[in-house]
Amino acid sequence: MAKSQPLFSLLLFIFISGTISQSIIQLSRDHDVYCNSWRFSVETNDVGYWDHVPSRCVSYVQDYMTGDGYRSDSEVASSYALGFAKTVEIAGDGKDAWVFDVDETLLSNLPYYAVHGFGSEPFDELSFDDWVDLAEAPAIQASLNLYKGLKQLGFTVFMLTGRSEHQRNATAKNLQLEGYGDYERLILRESLDQGKPATLYKSQRRLELVNEGYRIHGNSGDQWSDLYGFAVSERSFKLPNPLYYIP
Amino acid sequence: MAKSQPLFSLLLFIFISGTISQSIIQLSRDHDVYCNSWRFSVETNDVGYWDHVPSRCVSYVQDYMTGDGYRSDSEVASSYALGFAKTVEIAGDGKDAWVFDVDETLLSNLPYYAVHGFGSEPFDELSFDDWVDLAEAPAIQASLNLYKGLKQLGFTVFMLTGRSEHQRNATAKNLQLEGYGDYERLILRESLDQGKPATLYKSQRRLELVNEGYRIHGNSGDQWSDLYGFAVSERSFKLPNPLYYIP
Repeated sequence: MAKSQPLFSLLLFIFISGTISQSIIQLSRDHDVYCNSWRFSVETNDVGYWDHVPSRCVSYVQDYMTGDGYRSDSEVASSYALGFAKTVEIAGDGKDAWVFDVDETLLSNLPYYAVHGFGSEPFDELSFDDWVDLAEAPAIQASLNLYKGLKQLGFTVFMLTGRSEHQRNATAKNLQLEGYGDYERLILRESLDQGKPATLYKSQRRLELVNEGYRIHGNSGDQWSDLYGFAVSERSFKLPNPLYYIP
Repeated sequence: MAKSQPLFSLLLFIFISGTISQSIIQLSRDHDVYCNSWRFSVETNDVGYWDHVPSRCVSYVQDYMTGDGYRSDSEVASSYALGFAKTVEIAGDGKDAWVFDVDETLLSNLPYYAVHGFGSEPFDELSFDDWVDLAEAPAIQASLNLYKGLKQLGFTVFMLTGRSEHQRNATAKNLQLEGYGDYERLILRESLDQGKPATLYKSQRRLELVNEGYRIHGNSGDQWSDLYGFAVSERSFKLPNPLYYIP
């Protein structure tokens, strides 16, 4: 009997696992209602790791990204960021900092994802890198407006991206072309950062800034891995992104 | 000139403050589009502190809370919580724990807020306490289903609420009436906790549980102050709440 206990537990576990979610939590059959809720759970990080948009939500995501929803969500998030920024007392020593992620924060890769299934296809690094090399990602207008506002207020701006050093030229060129001038530093993954979870890599780089004496007041990113970890900013601003998840 | 510098800076600051948000970030004039985005910013904590629902969004919030949206968002959040819970290996020593907040997490105060302006009125502690004493807050069905699922899986459940010790009887009675039986402990604010920010109070109490040997795998709450701080759970699950904000 003692020997069969683990097997019994395993069978019980499999039985419970297979039945609980089916039986006790009802999910809406209406695609728009469900997909709205899926997006809520994505943006609050309730979903945790996910690797593709659920098939029933692909056209919902397309409508959201290309319609009023995404633009408005970005605008309201930026307006709260700017509202906070205006409460920060700028010391004038150049150490009052704001950190921006790049992809889906300053630049939009929507033209790429529009021809790659709006988040429904597995990520293809080769074709995405080709897209990055084109340096044609448009600015997210609300972020560009926030960026200009922060510069006007006297913030020192850092870009901290998961892109790699070999993408420096294309990234810097793209940022410049889209109006993001006069930033302090563009930080990219070096070879020693390859393979690190984004949360760790970005935390380490923020810590370096803190050790250099910068006061990181704000941090804008579309992934929780841009915002969590250590050396976090005073306030974090989560931008919408229902296309992909980076741990 | 040196003396007038601060005054000049102040005037410049006031000028910039007054113009930036008006001029450079456009917000949607469509109430539903704007209020959807406001809710996104509330749920991601981009708004930070807020004390009432914007007047243009009160009927939007009413529709959301009483219609399919809130129910569906709660269901999807609970389904992800349960999905994660099923991946946890339960040791069988009673130390695998899940922490629930109470208000707008296990119990709904919607009947109270429905007659108090759906978040548009300033919080009135006296009338809210009278409502709590009635012990008539209904269960949030998705949370009750999650609760039952967690108990079936073998989790030890703690309730950690911002309610005060003098509300213990009404709260315990209400929970029992709504089907929340067999939990380990109901933790309320003691007199030494009064006035503490919720994040600190809840972190301290979670740390006590950790020090007692509990492994806090999951934490469900409708406020970021339920989920942030220290002694945080392995995974946090943010439930929707556009009615109020607790720092």
